Order: sequence, then structure tokens, then C-alpha cells
Amino acid sequence: MKLRIFVTLKPGVLDPQGRAIQHALGSLGFDGVNDVRAGKLIEMDVADGTDDAAVDRMCRQLLANTVIENYRVERA
Amino acid sequence: MKLRIFVTLKPGVLDPQGRAIQHALGSLGFDGVNDVRAGKLIEMDVADGTDDAAVDRMCRQLLANTVIENYRVERA
Repeated sequence: MKLRIFVTLKPGVLDPQGRAIQHALGSLGFDGVNDVRAGKLIEMDVADGTDDAAVDRMCRQLLANTVIENYRVERA
Repeated sequence: MKLRIFVTLKPGVLDPQGRAIQHALGSLGFDGVNDVRAGKLIEMDVADGTDDAAVDRMCRQLLANTVIENYRVERA
């Protein structure tokens, strides 16, 4: 079973990587980029019987820092 | 206009970060994780008039290394 896990910074958390991308796009001549936020995409292939609770624990224990990050799981 | 850009390693390209995540999940007792690939998610807010060609140029010039990475753009 394929999973896609999106890990994004919570709103309000400073994102230096996103800010750097935004500035670099401006330097390259791309106007109108108002905001950039950088996050992670983790694609996993897990055993078919894996339940939602286990995936949730994976995210909380390892994949996301829930103090500053949100995560969303999508089953593909 | 909100954009979500997914940058993933091409199949066959070695992914040490994904491998590390896979091993760490195993160490934490999560069985049945067959494969993990780590990628990037870039969320952008761009001016409404921005056309597909410009977004494509942003990806090719800055956001993705097209030698080893694929990218996909989603308009939210």
C-alpha cells in the first residue's frame, strides 16, 4: 500500500528555507511570488494491513515534529 | 493563487534520507515498511496572472534538479 505523507510547518513558524526560495525566485526575475513555504513529502510503501493508527504513530514519533509541524496522510 | 509543487527523486536515484527513515521506523518497531522515498513539498502563493510556463521555468531553474528529480505542480 502506497502512502504519501505531507509535512508542513505550522502557520506562524518562521521558514528560512521558504524565504530563501522566495528571494532566489525574485533574483531570477520571477515577480509576483508573495509567499513560499517549504515542507517535506514522504512516500512510503507499507504492508497492506497497516492501519491508520500505526501510520499516525509513525508521523508523531518520527516523521513530523508536532510542536512546529503539521502532517497529512494520503493513501494512494 | 496557491500552488503546491512536489519534487521527488527519479526512480533509481539513491535516496539516503529515505533509507534512513525506513531504518529508523524499523528500529521503532514499525514492521512492513517496504520502501521510503523522501521528497520536497513547496507551497507558493503567486500572483493570479502567473501562467503555467512561468511556473515550469521556476521549477526547472531553481526548485528541482531535473537531472535527478521529477516535479509536479498542483493548483490549489
